[in-house]
Amino acid sequence: MSGIIYPILASLVALLFVFYLAWSVLRRDAGSQRMREISLAIQDGARTFLLREYRYVTLVVILVAIFLTLGPLFGQRVKVNWETALAFVIGAIASGIAGWTAMWVGTRANSRTAQAARSGLKPALSVSFSGGATTGLSIVGVALLGLCVVYLLFGGKPVIINGYAMGASLMALFARAGGGIYTKGADMGADLVGKVEEGIPEDDPRNAAVIADNVGDNVGDTAGLGADLLESYVESIIATIAIGVSLTMIGSELVLLPLWLASWGIISSILGVVCVKAVRGLEPQKALNMGVYIAAFLMAVGGFFIIKGMGISYAVNASSYGGLGLFWALMGGLASGLIIGMVSEFYTSSKYKPVRNLAGSARTGPAVVVVNGLALGMGSTLIPVVVIAGATLLGYSSAGMYGVSLAALGMLSILGITLAVDSYGPVADNAGGIAEMAGLDPQVRKITDKLDAVGNTTAAIGKGFAIGSAAFAALGLITAYIATANSVSLEKISLQLTDPTLIAGLLVGGMIPYLFSSLLAGGVGKVAFKIIEEVRRQFKEIEGLREGKAKADSSKCVDIAARGAIHSMMFPGVLAILIPIAVGFLLGPVALGGLLVGALVTGLALGIQTANTGAALDNAKKYIEEGNFGGKGTEAHKAAVVGDTVGDPLKDTLGPSINILIKLMSVISLVLAPLFVR
Amino acid sequence: MSGIIYPILASLVALLFVFYLAWSVLRRDAGSQRMREISLAIQDGARTFLLREYRYVTLVVILVAIFLTLGPLFGQRVKVNWETALAFVIGAIASGIAGWTAMWVGTRANSRTAQAARSGLKPALSVSFSGGATTGLSIVGVALLGLCVVYLLFGGKPVIINGYAMGASLMALFARAGGGIYTKGADMGADLVGKVEEGIPEDDPRNAAVIADNVGDNVGDTAGLGADLLESYVESIIATIAIGVSLTMIGSELVLLPLWLASWGIISSILGVVCVKAVRGLEPQKALNMGVYIAAFLMAVGGFFIIKGMGISYAVNASSYGGLGLFWALMGGLASGLIIGMVSEFYTSSKYKPVRNLAGSARTGPAVVVVNGLALGMGSTLIPVVVIAGATLLGYSSAGMYGVSLAALGMLSILGITLAVDSYGPVADNAGGIAEMAGLDPQVRKITDKLDAVGNTTAAIGKGFAIGSAAFAALGLITAYIATANSVSLEKISLQLTDPTLIAGLLVGGMIPYLFSSLLAGGVGKVAFKIIEEVRRQFKEIEGLREGKAKADSSKCVDIAARGAIHSMMFPGVLAILIPIAVGFLLGPVALGGLLVGALVTGLALGIQTANTGAALDNAKKYIEEGNFGGKGTEAHKAAVVGDTVGDPLKDTLGPSINILIKLMSVISLVLAPLFVR
Repeated sequence: MSGIIYPILASLVALLFVFYLAWSVLRRDAGSQRMREISLAIQDGARTFLLREYRYVTLVVILVAIFLTLGPLFGQRVKVNWETALAFVIGAIASGIAGWTAMWVGTRANSRTAQAARSGLKPALSVSFSGGATTGLSIVGVALLGLCVVYLLFGGKPVIINGYAMGASLMALFARAGGGIYTKGADMGADLVGKVEEGIPEDDPRNAAVIADNVGDNVGDTAGLGADLLESYVESIIATIAIGVSLTMIGSELVLLPLWLASWGIISSILGVVCVKAVRGLEPQKALNMGVYIAAFLMAVGGFFIIKGMGISYAVNASSYGGLGLFWALMGGLASGLIIGMVSEFYTSSKYKPVRNLAGSARTGPAVVVVNGLALGMGSTLIPVVVIAGATLLGYSSAGMYGVSLAALGMLSILGITLAVDSYGPVADNAGGIAEMAGLDPQVRKITDKLDAVGNTTAAIGKGFAIGSAAFAALGLITAYIATANSVSLEKISLQLTDPTLIAGLLVGGMIPYLFSSLLAGGVGKVAFKIIEEVRRQFKEIEGLREGKAKADSSKCVDIAARGAIHSMMFPGVLAILIPIAVGFLLGPVALGGLLVGALVTGLALGIQTANTGAALDNAKKYIEEGNFGGKGTEAHKAAVVGDTVGDPLKDTLGPSINILIKLMSVISLVLAPLFVR
Repeated sequence: MSGIIYPILASLVALLFVFYLAWSVLRRDAGSQRMREISLAIQDGARTFLLREYRYVTLVVILVAIFLTLGPLFGQRVKVNWETALAFVIGAIASGIAGWTAMWVGTRANSRTAQAARSGLKPALSVSFSGGATTGLSIVGVALLGLCVVYLLFGGKPVIINGYAMGASLMALFARAGGGIYTKGADMGADLVGKVEEGIPEDDPRNAAVIADNVGDNVGDTAGLGADLLESYVESIIATIAIGVSLTMIGSELVLLPLWLASWGIISSILGVVCVKAVRGLEPQKALNMGVYIAAFLMAVGGFFIIKGMGISYAVNASSYGGLGLFWALMGGLASGLIIGMVSEFYTSSKYKPVRNLAGSARTGPAVVVVNGLALGMGSTLIPVVVIAGATLLGYSSAGMYGVSLAALGMLSILGITLAVDSYGPVADNAGGIAEMAGLDPQVRKITDKLDAVGNTTAAIGKGFAIGSAAFAALGLITAYIATANSVSLEKISLQLTDPTLIAGLLVGGMIPYLFSSLLAGGVGKVAFKIIEEVRRQFKEIEGLREGKAKADSSKCVDIAARGAIHSMMFPGVLAILIPIAVGFLLGPVALGGLLVGALVTGLALGIQTANTGAALDNAKKYIEEGNFGGKGTEAHKAAVVGDTVGDPLKDTLGPSINILIKLMSVISLVLAPLFVR
């Protein structure tokens, strides 16, 4: 058990650094009275929503925990019991803490970034990136520390540790789905009345939905994304541990390797963050990229020595590739993460041809830009999917299924910094909103806009990364699921592609992400509709609002969005829990295996498509707003606004939730596999 | 070989009936001078395009045939040779003849329908349905007759007969993709300049792209759909034959059963068509539905006696379900075809809530209606996928893989009438266009509009049916592929879901339909853009055109659409041929198996989604145009027009082409399987 000390130390270092970063943000000036007020309103809204969301989720967590505790009733061979339930609860709590921290810091960094922007780009970048880094490092720190606690509590038994991942996954689903519906319902509602009907600018304080929109950025993009990636991170480590145990035994080097690599990944991330903060005179995008590349380089070097140092493990035929099979598996994952990021950037940044052509097609009207946006997203699936398939094959040829799992871990190893870069976006976005609402100098808004544009691209990269890592994590979980089902089954379970039960499972599984997306999109539509009605009502009933003499009642919109989001997330969320359980019990482990893979296959393509379609449409609009193709006020711009509004729920609600859907169904199947086997 | 006489007789009866139907259409009055002119222009355009398309495809057919002839060079065990090549060429020719006939009759029935509409709804329905029935029955007649020829020529050897399906598939891909790009490029181009920019009504003769739009209906919706379903039809029969041979031997009852059932299906379809034509006083939709139900009933009764009469075949464990296992497998397929039709109708007809709600959401603007349309399509995948999975399981439990294949055949058995109903739509649509362009009485246009609205729903049903049957056909082909690969391989090929090679194949396969769709959508965009430029140019340069004093030069647009469509279809088409070959040679039969299933899994969901999203958006627009939510001229209507324009390429280009993509890749793999095995 001595090897467990490294991850504990690394996560404690991360958390200490988080305290330092949070302090460095909080000691900053929060700006004028008005800015503080707005920031406070956003904090209130975000806190209220998360509290309410957690209350509902707690209910689900308790029900699931009771169900897990009852595991032994299903037979002797079933190893699901109160221990699993406890690990599950710890996982849920860890995810909750991480999400809460992300929201807490994010909603405080926003006004401070706006204030810093008054003194220039560099301090504004510094504050907003510190906010993002707090989120990134607190998530990896909490995740790894919680995992170590569970590992120690239950002596490293994989069957129990899986419960930890399931807890994190359940929380993540509701955080992503609820946050996603919230943020896009509020955003669409705000835009459709404000920009389109009333012709007032984005983030105008007269629009009662603007605060809700800003709250949404925090609960959706920050807390939701964090919970999502925390889950992938935990699952990639746990899957590697589980496969390691099946090959050797608990406590062996192969079992501890993922924990060691994760530890070094945290240190690499911290050093990357320090570099970003230390560097001067670079463009924001370049500074952020540099940080990620430095961390990746450190990870590669450290990974080499860690694997070299532990010696060749014959359990995984690690003599392949000159004894460095494990290292190459890790590198495949790390590299594919970076490649997916670059591809996302290429397809969604207005620096490159795809978005510029898309913007140009807006001149032929909204329908053409939407169709082209969809086509762009569909085409953008090619490279990421091939890269993931390639990394899977490389991992397998290097070190079998352990190598595949290690590739997933490689991709997520420097999550601390990639997540820091992703989470910086919403902070910058919020800062821009506050600058607008508080009526700061247009120069300040220009700086925040610049930060925000970079944030849009980093968000797209983050989403590509999230779906890629989700696919990898799900792959690891599905493999572990099949192994677990086999280990408790009396006869070997065969998942032959020629088995119609498996085919039926694959087909139905392939449909689930579509069904789930449909339900979430319906939720967004409903929330947006209610928000629109409320904002319209306020413009009609509050005298002097349009002229800026009276104040809009934004708390009403915050409440509507929160209620609507929680209401709409419950059914799809519970469905995602029940489907694998129902299929497992009724149709057995083979159909369930098919279901999981089917959902993975469509979910991966659909997830990438929605993320890139949405981000490209968003940036095409921004590109026109910069003055291209006639700029603001032209028909092309109007068409691009429609395109952006279509893309918004695709990229921020549907796409991201699919990641978690895939992972949650897989981890539930993994934990409950013993129950489904006859 | 005596049993082969029935399918030959049945197909000859079908073709005789086709001559009668065609004669009954052609002897009708083709209308005024102006109507004849317009119809002639459409005929010319369609003929020119198909000829040009066939010229390019012939080149591909010759290349592939040469490749097949060289099969023996790859080794002794490989049974691909000049016989396969000959069957392949016959298949391509059969598909070409069927597509040509469909186009030939369709483009002549249009003006005659418009003329008949002057005397009332009943005669107009009669003529347009006769046109559709000519298409439907000529396709099943030609397909079955050609198959019998190949069967007799090569003594029923499945390895050779597969070539016939591959030929039909190759033609179908280009017909669908080329026709789809043509029809939607022209349609979008016509609408965006005509309705949106110039504010002139649909089908206004001043719009130079209107003739191209009407040509598109014929080459896309009629010839393309026909080739698509011909392929599914042929493949479901051939897959059943192949599995029958593997269980017993050539010429056994199990091998002839699919041919007998197909024969009776043709007779049932003819009787159904006669009923539709004989009935009086029913609404068009009800009359058409009645015909389909009567045919389905006759098929069920006849199927029962045919299967009962051939006795229990122990080769397929047919003692299951009281000795009627084969019958129930057939019924499962037949019923699932009908259910998918009903579900499509429910989601896409303005008689039901989904489309009405969608139309209502248009009041909140174009973005909301598009998002809701996408969500509607995504949600509509649930039942069809579950039904197909259920029919697969029922078929398998009844009679093993033979039963699964029989379920596919059951779904397609009454294709003669279902295709008649589908093909009636474009005829009615064209008739409306001619009525408008020839300036007929608004009363006439009202009648054709009524027929067209029904046609929209039947088209959606047809598309649901096409994708459902494609999934079934592909399933049969993939099973046959695996069986063939195993039969020539020295060691058993295992397609275990735990094999990363298979997983990589699945993931990449799942991405292919997205990539393919993206390429086609890009083609539509390009063609539409060129058409728009041309129509704009004509409005600017032709004096008096806007006032209706000068004539638009529609041949220019016809030419642009044809060139553009053929240019854009070649790359994705060749890609669809090369991908399975490349994966098969480079990564082997396991990865290829994964690729095919992956493409099937996403293709099924994406195909249903695109078809229903498009049809629902189209009918939501029509529902508003009927005067709901304010009717024409309102913001809601404008938003719905945008939604319709987004939906058009989804339902008529992307969705339908995916069907064939799946089938073509599967049939190529089946034919070439021996080459990929080491």
